[in-house]
Amino acid sequence: MGKKLTKRAEDYSKWYNELVVKADLAENSGVRGMMVIKPYGYAIWEKMQAELDRMFKETGHENAYFPLLIPKSYFSKEASHVDGFAKECAVVTHYRLKNDEEGNGIVVDEKAKLEEELIIRPTSETIIWDSYRKWIQSYRDLPLLINQWANVMRWEMRTRLFLRTAEFLWQEGHTAHETKDEAIEETQKMQGVYAEFAESFMAMPVIKGTKTESERFAGALDTYTIEAMMQDGRALQAGTSHFLGQNFAKAFDVKYATREGKQDFVWATSWGVSTRLMGALVMSHSDDFGLVLPPKLAPIQVAIVPIYKGEEQLKMLDERIAGFTKELRAKGISVKYDNRNTYKPGWKFAEYELKGVPLRVAMGPRDLENNTAELARRDTLEKETIDQGDLVERIETLLTEIQDNLFKKALNFRDNLITEVDSFDDFKETLNAKGGFISAHWDGTSETEERIKSETKATIRCIPLEGGDETGSCVYSGKPSSKRVLFAKAY
Amino acid sequence: MGKKLTKRAEDYSKWYNELVVKADLAENSGVRGMMVIKPYGYAIWEKMQAELDRMFKETGHENAYFPLLIPKSYFSKEASHVDGFAKECAVVTHYRLKNDEEGNGIVVDEKAKLEEELIIRPTSETIIWDSYRKWIQSYRDLPLLINQWANVMRWEMRTRLFLRTAEFLWQEGHTAHETKDEAIEETQKMQGVYAEFAESFMAMPVIKGTKTESERFAGALDTYTIEAMMQDGRALQAGTSHFLGQNFAKAFDVKYATREGKQDFVWATSWGVSTRLMGALVMSHSDDFGLVLPPKLAPIQVAIVPIYKGEEQLKMLDERIAGFTKELRAKGISVKYDNRNTYKPGWKFAEYELKGVPLRVAMGPRDLENNTAELARRDTLEKETIDQGDLVERIETLLTEIQDNLFKKALNFRDNLITEVDSFDDFKETLNAKGGFISAHWDGTSETEERIKSETKATIRCIPLEGGDETGSCVYSGKPSSKRVLFAKAY
Repeated sequence: MGKKLTKRAEDYSKWYNELVVKADLAENSGVRGMMVIKPYGYAIWEKMQAELDRMFKETGHENAYFPLLIPKSYFSKEASHVDGFAKECAVVTHYRLKNDEEGNGIVVDEKAKLEEELIIRPTSETIIWDSYRKWIQSYRDLPLLINQWANVMRWEMRTRLFLRTAEFLWQEGHTAHETKDEAIEETQKMQGVYAEFAESFMAMPVIKGTKTESERFAGALDTYTIEAMMQDGRALQAGTSHFLGQNFAKAFDVKYATREGKQDFVWATSWGVSTRLMGALVMSHSDDFGLVLPPKLAPIQVAIVPIYKGEEQLKMLDERIAGFTKELRAKGISVKYDNRNTYKPGWKFAEYELKGVPLRVAMGPRDLENNTAELARRDTLEKETIDQGDLVERIETLLTEIQDNLFKKALNFRDNLITEVDSFDDFKETLNAKGGFISAHWDGTSETEERIKSETKATIRCIPLEGGDETGSCVYSGKPSSKRVLFAKAY
Repeated sequence: MGKKLTKRAEDYSKWYNELVVKADLAENSGVRGMMVIKPYGYAIWEKMQAELDRMFKETGHENAYFPLLIPKSYFSKEASHVDGFAKECAVVTHYRLKNDEEGNGIVVDEKAKLEEELIIRPTSETIIWDSYRKWIQSYRDLPLLINQWANVMRWEMRTRLFLRTAEFLWQEGHTAHETKDEAIEETQKMQGVYAEFAESFMAMPVIKGTKTESERFAGALDTYTIEAMMQDGRALQAGTSHFLGQNFAKAFDVKYATREGKQDFVWATSWGVSTRLMGALVMSHSDDFGLVLPPKLAPIQVAIVPIYKGEEQLKMLDERIAGFTKELRAKGISVKYDNRNTYKPGWKFAEYELKGVPLRVAMGPRDLENNTAELARRDTLEKETIDQGDLVERIETLLTEIQDNLFKKALNFRDNLITEVDSFDDFKETLNAKGGFISAHWDGTSETEERIKSETKATIRCIPLEGGDETGSCVYSGKPSSKRVLFAKAY
């Protein structure tokens, strides 16, 4: 197990980095800025994927796959998109290596230079809209509702496991519609799907809102976001859904025959969440002892550890516990029975605590006599001794309770970190002393937004969809405002 | 629907290319050699993935994810591997673009040149073994049984949809073991998993065997393969499983503390199947009317088409059919009820035929009166009129029957295309007149293998695990041989 985990209060950032590695979620690779997602971390991501994929399909979307490499010229077709994405990216310039004639191993073969450079996709709007031109002829081809699960690459200079990596895994939805209204409805629907996923599965409360112009996706007319609050008082953008208007349809000449027999450009959306959610999950619930996972996303929901001396005791425990694991699995609960003789019970307890397994059951010889078991929940660290006859039902109840408890705890924490301020002095003081979301009036200009950012490092996380509608004056400029927006320092 | 499909007998290759596009499986993208997998094709791939993933997990494997980009130097560490893989590959040399000062759009920023070039993974042994060095210390960390679902890239000059594309999707298993025997057992086990998947799900019979030295994976001591036979008499390598010995452990210095407390290099395997299986699936069963899909991998197993005039008839059919779709779905059968009024029944029939939907149900006003339905199966093109009371049960039975029938038909076809020959003249004649597998004696030398290849274009597809053990003399050199091997022209 190695050294103890750094405490959050000591150094939150160090705590996070250590935890991700110690809990076997991910680690840095030998390639700058690129991570290895280890089996335990990947198992959580698979659970996220499965739920999201189900939700996408239930809302009528199909999966497809588009090329990893995008010709450089595609990016230039949508003017604002190229500025946002084509700059910091991995560029493929050659397609062959050869043995160096001077014996220096393998080197790039200069004869195999590409006529046009290819970019590893930082996002796929351009290559996908180049296909949509061929797929869409008439209103009968619409709506086109497609999602892609893929790896993407953005050449980040400062990287952190899950939160900001050069390569990351994500899904990107790309849809085409007959009307503006339908596209906006789709954008909002997918924001809703993301919020539902974050709250019901990750147990992570989010605020739904829209981005200001300067924080929008490059090429979007409007960006809908879900914003979460981490334990250190910094916000995290957890998912975005973009209304793209007719920008990409125009850039890639995607027209359709309308019901009235005219030709018109289609309306578009795109939306995505990524392995960044893994970072958000870690930072939402975990504590100084390690990971805390919501049962709905935990690869192991219950770990059962036998406590024994000698083969005979183990055999008795194996037999007794086999019945419980079978019963639990039949109920769809994922159980790990850990009877490895290469590790001691104390080591195993610490391991499952570190890895955030929601429930741990321990059973020893005395439990066999008394027909009892010890049940420990990871979220509250509470232990109870219960009758074996009640074990399965109690586990079922507790898994639901833990899921709910984590959400409530995170919601309470987040709500306490939303502070209304009405002066810029209060703004700065709250930001430094308390952190969290600052609900304040803003005059609606990019200029003010930029000044607040440069003076405080806080950005407008979103213009919330709900609440905040009241007249007031901008916390910075004093100019009139009709709605409070949420500021925060962010990941 | 466009033009009619080219017939197989006319031009098999053209038939394949047309079918893949017309049936909406995949198409070429604007990027050379890279395909777009369309939703219908991707839905089949997802079904393949789901079954394979289940089989991998049932045999104890976990998924993980490793970086897309691999430093050039990693490839040089395993001598034979670099020759096989590092040559024809996509090379990332820069990490930034910029606006051209002379106004020529965006260009590569020469200041952002990487110190060491990065290769888009053609396969991941090197980057994965670089991680395993950190993960493996003792026998307690073994076996390490990991799989990755990923995109990979090999810069092929001549590409064909699914069969040979620059980018393709695959899974790659990478395992580490204490002993040689255990690693060989794993290699064989995964060959078995692939064979089971090919036969039970794809309904595609395969021959299990090993590759000759010259056809082995670059870096392997032994390559186990499953070989299938396509309708044009050419073989297709459908999956390979490699025993890597200690080659990668030595190249990446992966040692472990043995049970006896010594240090030793671990033993390795790797194994993979790819979207190439999609091509194999298409070519195994499809006919001149379009795709034929085995029910177990068909995204739509039953298409139901109402035949009506006017809203009132449609409403009656909608109601009657709703009960059947519900009942079928409850049994886990995937049903599409196609009551679109934008297409006529005849168009829909042709569409589902082209897309290989195993069963089609048609119901019209007369069927409502007579309590009947028309059921058409895609494999035999047979139709039957049956009582509605028997419909659900009949569909269940037929889906099983179609799955079995496709396998038997393909097996019979394949078995008829295995010809034993004992002279090189017969070899050449059989190859040209009949094609298929040629079972012949071979003297075991790479020299003979190479000569046969250059004279006939036939390669040794495998040394079969079963059968062929008999003394004889090499069909080419006349030298002694103790076993027949299988030759064929191959994809």
